[in-house]
Amino acid sequence: MYSIEESGAFVETFELEPTHSGPLDGLRWAAKDLIDVAGYKTGCGNPTWRETHPPAVTNAVCVDQLLSAGARCVGKTLTDELAFSLDGENYFYGTPVNPRAPDRVPGGSSSGSASAVACRQVDFALGTDTGGSIRIPANNCGIYGMRPSHDRVSLAGVMAFAPTYDTVGVLAADPSILDLTARVLLGCAEAREARVGTMYLISEAFEQADDAVRSALAEPVERLRRRYGDRIKELSLENLSESSAPDLFRTWFEAFRVVQWAEIWSSLGDWVERCRPEFGPRTRNNFSLVRGLDRSEVGAAVRQREFLFRRLHWILESGDVLCMPTAPAFAPVKGSLPNNRSEGSYYPRTVSFNSLSGVGRLPQVSMPLGESGGVPVGLSLLTRHGEDAFLLDVMAQVVQGAA
Amino acid sequence: MYSIEESGAFVETFELEPTHSGPLDGLRWAAKDLIDVAGYKTGCGNPTWRETHPPAVTNAVCVDQLLSAGARCVGKTLTDELAFSLDGENYFYGTPVNPRAPDRVPGGSSSGSASAVACRQVDFALGTDTGGSIRIPANNCGIYGMRPSHDRVSLAGVMAFAPTYDTVGVLAADPSILDLTARVLLGCAEAREARVGTMYLISEAFEQADDAVRSALAEPVERLRRRYGDRIKELSLENLSESSAPDLFRTWFEAFRVVQWAEIWSSLGDWVERCRPEFGPRTRNNFSLVRGLDRSEVGAAVRQREFLFRRLHWILESGDVLCMPTAPAFAPVKGSLPNNRSEGSYYPRTVSFNSLSGVGRLPQVSMPLGESGGVPVGLSLLTRHGEDAFLLDVMAQVVQGAA
Repeated sequence: MYSIEESGAFVETFELEPTHSGPLDGLRWAAKDLIDVAGYKTGCGNPTWRETHPPAVTNAVCVDQLLSAGARCVGKTLTDELAFSLDGENYFYGTPVNPRAPDRVPGGSSSGSASAVACRQVDFALGTDTGGSIRIPANNCGIYGMRPSHDRVSLAGVMAFAPTYDTVGVLAADPSILDLTARVLLGCAEAREARVGTMYLISEAFEQADDAVRSALAEPVERLRRRYGDRIKELSLENLSESSAPDLFRTWFEAFRVVQWAEIWSSLGDWVERCRPEFGPRTRNNFSLVRGLDRSEVGAAVRQREFLFRRLHWILESGDVLCMPTAPAFAPVKGSLPNNRSEGSYYPRTVSFNSLSGVGRLPQVSMPLGESGGVPVGLSLLTRHGEDAFLLDVMAQVVQGAA
Repeated sequence: MYSIEESGAFVETFELEPTHSGPLDGLRWAAKDLIDVAGYKTGCGNPTWRETHPPAVTNAVCVDQLLSAGARCVGKTLTDELAFSLDGENYFYGTPVNPRAPDRVPGGSSSGSASAVACRQVDFALGTDTGGSIRIPANNCGIYGMRPSHDRVSLAGVMAFAPTYDTVGVLAADPSILDLTARVLLGCAEAREARVGTMYLISEAFEQADDAVRSALAEPVERLRRRYGDRIKELSLENLSESSAPDLFRTWFEAFRVVQWAEIWSSLGDWVERCRPEFGPRTRNNFSLVRGLDRSEVGAAVRQREFLFRRLHWILESGDVLCMPTAPAFAPVKGSLPNNRSEGSYYPRTVSFNSLSGVGRLPQVSMPLGESGGVPVGLSLLTRHGEDAFLLDVMAQVVQGAA
């Protein structure tokens, strides 16, 4: 396996004692370097940010929750610059290793958290996810990752990026550790037997995924069919969107994108203009895109977003689950992505897949159930907003079936 | 009436043109000085904050929503220091006038927004509400105020205080303007006839309110009884909390307080320690309280909060409404409050009343339906998380009945 130095997953290491004994006794974990740990700088993956901010004076609330549940924090993990990426290639600090596919990117922006978990350097790690930043690294590195329902885990002490979509969540190699940890963060009910209503396979997500991804997931999907029988149904985005536009993911993507870009500039524009940070080429491009947004569009985008949210929750009943590939494509080969995220298909397609839970405020878990030629592929489950405890119950049921 | 100078409600005035025509055409409004308006400093009610921050480079997302709906922004309104108060007495910048009761405080922290609306200087104003900062000024100044469901109006470009409870909402003298404006911010459905299930009067809130408040609300409550007949029921916090502790508001208050204090220090502690700001005596006391919190309690407080949230939504069905006095007491006489918020009964009692929607993520409107000796008193309606459009429909029905 990889040493801490070889993996490049950590920004720094230390040992923070738990403050109480609890359900996470004995577990070791790390926090993405977007999350405050008292006494350490929150570097956010950019050297100018690190220079212009002092060490945090107190822990983020999520850090205190984990310490008081018995877990020991052993370091901070690398993030893509200001969380604004899905690749994990940090121009300044390098690319944490993806131990399952070392020629491919680990995924970002929670790149170091995924790498540290996949290298078995920690039992779990905290990440953040606005448009895929936990789910994509979990997918790429062959581990479990959960984006909780929006507004269920405290964001205090975590860098604000796009607050309408920002979440704190967790990555782990062992689903039972993911379960335990997520329940501490969520302050939610204990595990129970899941009673699944309908499990919907999202038609367009399976159709638009690369053939190789679909093939890699054929067997896990077949197991779901055997497990849930006629409770498995197909669901088209046409039903979810009340529209028959030719590319329906585009509708979700656009509602997501406009609000996200407007919020990123509202959150970080002051610092960018004041400090004139040095950026890597991709980040520079990203910020020139968000700075150039026509902000008078944002009112219409919020209305569209809320329409899709209501429509989704009108169709999904309590106990229903959505299922889709986490990503439309394999983890890209290192160095292969364009500097402008609007070019090429990887970013628009991947953000589209991930926008379903962003727009819908849905919790989502990515499970490492497929692979092809050694490259891991994730299958995702989603459910109604706020039903995170149920989603964890369903994950346990599905994984049990897979074992 | 009061001039802009006489009211002390504004930090600065200007004219920002709407970017599109829309449902708010012709309306004039102001933003609490916690909310970014491009080109102006966001002063947050504290001179050191103003000195240590440059002008905002872009608007908060909520500002762009209102401009694109046709409304004209005419200035920024005074806030209590860093939003950390319910009184409206700013040590540095003074106390905006409460035109309905000039010897009493306007309430805070959205003090200037309430004053500007009550003085009829604007048609509506944006405020923020973490623990009562819209509802209490609306109550004190005899106007309408809405705290939306948590996580329904964008917080991007708004000073982070306690993200688990922070909201952006609106104050207006005319309920139909409150309705229009809130629907733009929420991106929600249009008005329709409300179909109320049960309207629950919260027993302990009426019992624990001062006699004078209860008397002032007797007539509006009687009108509700006539309007809703046997759909009016009493509901005790005992049922909501699954507990029979002697002071049940205390349970809600404590779950609210610990998470709020932990988050305030996570959000603002870095700036406080780095900039060593000059504070007014109350603010200095407040920050010494949050700095001194035992943060290892926060995990248990999050669990308690989520328990109360689930319990509340298990009892409240869709279409049910809660009703209670907005505040337990009249607006305090100016200069009468203690510097330490833990002393005296005004703060603990008022925060307790307001913690119901904080802990429950519930939307709440305060309606100026009572008065006694010229002092206005608000009656509040609350409903399930996310059912903001329905709450506005119920408000319209209740107000129609009151006219």
